[in-house]
Amino acid sequence: MKDVSVGICGLGTVGGGTFNVLTRNAALIAGRAGCNIRITRVASRRNRDDIDLGGVAFSTEIFDVVNDPAVDVVVELIGGYDTARELVLTAIANGKHVVTANKALIAVHGNEIFAAAEKAGVVVAYEAGVAGGIPVMKAIREGLAGNRIDWIAGIINGTGNYILTEMRAGRAFADVLKEAQDLGYAEADPTFDVEGIDAAHKLTILASAGFGVPLQFEKAFTEGISSITPYDIAHAEQLGYRIKHLGIARRRDEGIELRVHPTLVPQSHLIAQVDGVLNAVLVDGDAVGQTMYYGPGAGDEATASAVIADIVDVARIVASGSSLRVPHLGFAPDALEKLDVLSMEDIQSAYYLRITALDRPGVLAKIASILSEHGINIESIMQKESEVQDGRIPVIILTHTVQERQVNRAIAELEALADTDGPVVRIRAENFN
Amino acid sequence: MKDVSVGICGLGTVGGGTFNVLTRNAALIAGRAGCNIRITRVASRRNRDDIDLGGVAFSTEIFDVVNDPAVDVVVELIGGYDTARELVLTAIANGKHVVTANKALIAVHGNEIFAAAEKAGVVVAYEAGVAGGIPVMKAIREGLAGNRIDWIAGIINGTGNYILTEMRAGRAFADVLKEAQDLGYAEADPTFDVEGIDAAHKLTILASAGFGVPLQFEKAFTEGISSITPYDIAHAEQLGYRIKHLGIARRRDEGIELRVHPTLVPQSHLIAQVDGVLNAVLVDGDAVGQTMYYGPGAGDEATASAVIADIVDVARIVASGSSLRVPHLGFAPDALEKLDVLSMEDIQSAYYLRITALDRPGVLAKIASILSEHGINIESIMQKESEVQDGRIPVIILTHTVQERQVNRAIAELEALADTDGPVVRIRAENFN
Repeated sequence: MKDVSVGICGLGTVGGGTFNVLTRNAALIAGRAGCNIRITRVASRRNRDDIDLGGVAFSTEIFDVVNDPAVDVVVELIGGYDTARELVLTAIANGKHVVTANKALIAVHGNEIFAAAEKAGVVVAYEAGVAGGIPVMKAIREGLAGNRIDWIAGIINGTGNYILTEMRAGRAFADVLKEAQDLGYAEADPTFDVEGIDAAHKLTILASAGFGVPLQFEKAFTEGISSITPYDIAHAEQLGYRIKHLGIARRRDEGIELRVHPTLVPQSHLIAQVDGVLNAVLVDGDAVGQTMYYGPGAGDEATASAVIADIVDVARIVASGSSLRVPHLGFAPDALEKLDVLSMEDIQSAYYLRITALDRPGVLAKIASILSEHGINIESIMQKESEVQDGRIPVIILTHTVQERQVNRAIAELEALADTDGPVVRIRAENFN
Repeated sequence: MKDVSVGICGLGTVGGGTFNVLTRNAALIAGRAGCNIRITRVASRRNRDDIDLGGVAFSTEIFDVVNDPAVDVVVELIGGYDTARELVLTAIANGKHVVTANKALIAVHGNEIFAAAEKAGVVVAYEAGVAGGIPVMKAIREGLAGNRIDWIAGIINGTGNYILTEMRAGRAFADVLKEAQDLGYAEADPTFDVEGIDAAHKLTILASAGFGVPLQFEKAFTEGISSITPYDIAHAEQLGYRIKHLGIARRRDEGIELRVHPTLVPQSHLIAQVDGVLNAVLVDGDAVGQTMYYGPGAGDEATASAVIADIVDVARIVASGSSLRVPHLGFAPDALEKLDVLSMEDIQSAYYLRITALDRPGVLAKIASILSEHGINIESIMQKESEVQDGRIPVIILTHTVQERQVNRAIAELEALADTDGPVVRIRAENFN
């Protein structure tokens, strides 16, 4: 059996998990891969006392790994943008395959990196970058290869999903965030997770592989969950919906929608039942219909599971000397379509609107009339006398699908009414049909 | 771009779907595969008026396809055992790759077929055989390659799941079955589906690829859903459980469990929420933890989606002339472990027991004492005075996990008690932890 040599850059959470699982399951993995996958080098700024490297060469200089002629596969687990980019491009220039868990790197520099890899005839694999241990990139790039994928919607940030799940018990965002930080689910600076940037990185990658378009992270729309209230969560539930922080990508003739935002989803849909730190990605293909992929989106060994699946794929290429490649984005580079990302004004969605109205006769008629003038049809409406406070009453409206531009215009008019008070709360909704 | 020639045997539901999707999405699929996948031959006992073959050679003799030197990939969609086996073995002998949706063929003749294919250097791909359009075989064989897979549990028969879903409304099995037959969800002879044979075919394949063991369909245990009553469904719900018809495979040191039977699963688990004709497969790996794969388990284009994913994989091999192979069961043939299937007496499970007791003092103590003597711990117990009828009262017990042998012995003693009436109803339960 041939040996394939792997060098690991970065010995943090995922690096440690990858080292441990590769070591623990070495015989089993060799039985699957048809070759011995040997870790021959590990480099990291800091070594770890809790991991027994068992004689594997360790260095604090990560470029030692990519410059070692004996290394076949470089595993980039240092995270970040600039150094990671340089490391990966150097590995490619040195003719090495790369496996990475770095979603930010792929979302932002992926087009450049994939082009370099294709020129050099090497593979840059990134399953672990999207939804942790869930093999969803393989599903989209290979398992659904016969389909025109029409849309993808995912719970792809565990921190945000944990917070929204806990808020269903009536707790405030800030309160649950603090708890998540104490539990280690959320960072001290939670922006990346709760404002949707991390999810947008993953969604960008999902959309490109799903639709066959270049990576366009800079055009992704992000809206976080920090302004979601237990009040809106409870009222969405009364309407039969649950609020999830979704990444949604949809292919339309005019371009693609690429957006991360809180979203009402029907309670009866399986994705509404995905709670806590778990992830799930729903994919709609023209032949298969809806499929969903569920599991842990983070964690040392869960992410390592995806890293190792990529290592096995690449090791088979190394061991067989094969020229067989699954294209990086699932489509041959010249088959990628230059579809633009649509502006948010051009997306189509249903909407949950909460309008604070003065409790006087005729207001509802005015509201309905404004919506109607903008071509917005009402799916359901909820207004409860018991909720009158200081002469004001919340009017909650769920609309049918409409263009966001129309909703923006209607909201501006609603807010300008003398019969309403303060801003209209707007949360997008999806029915997945 | 190279051409890869595909011959389709069988133009029924899946054959027609495959032809239509391959034709409709030809450009997109070529962009993914990096080669033109051309259907050059179709053979079927009967031609179909509703499909425009657009000049593709049609024949009523399926062996024309496997004997055509121009065909690179044979797609076997005729179903059944003997002719399909002969067709596939002939294709292999002629040096052709094979794609099949035939779970029965793989479960029963897979060891022989894979050995022949490995000797000939060709691939027999069978994603469509398990859970229809859900790319779960790819997930297990490749996406989870770093894991020791510990267990797999799946809703892998849509007919059975539809029936159990409808029965939650209090309807009887026979009533719902008739409706399912009228809707076309169930065959006139429903045995294959409702008695678990179809699910056992799929489970056999899942277990072999998950654990790396030869296919052993003949040792799979099957128990159908025809004796499940709305009464037990309702009482399971009161205990916080839902009854699903699951295929369960578990790897133990002594052997593997391979069993299809009605199973109580916690309502809070995502798999309990999979309703109607849909399928879902839950896989537990030592690194990743639990992941789940959900979608349509049948249907013309959904199944075609999996068939075409396999065709694309194989087409890349043909076009590149590569020797790279993912082993048929995910493990190199010499890495397969000869683990036996355990007898049902040796499996471990929790149990739902319904005992019809005479409504007199001391009976509960006797029941508890028998369970205790056999090392069976009680998780919960339910007995309602309101359910007394003709001096008899149902006692419902949910046990902790125990060996089935112990439960068999306890049931024999319970049924022998003068204080009980008739057989004890026993339904296995899983907590997935």
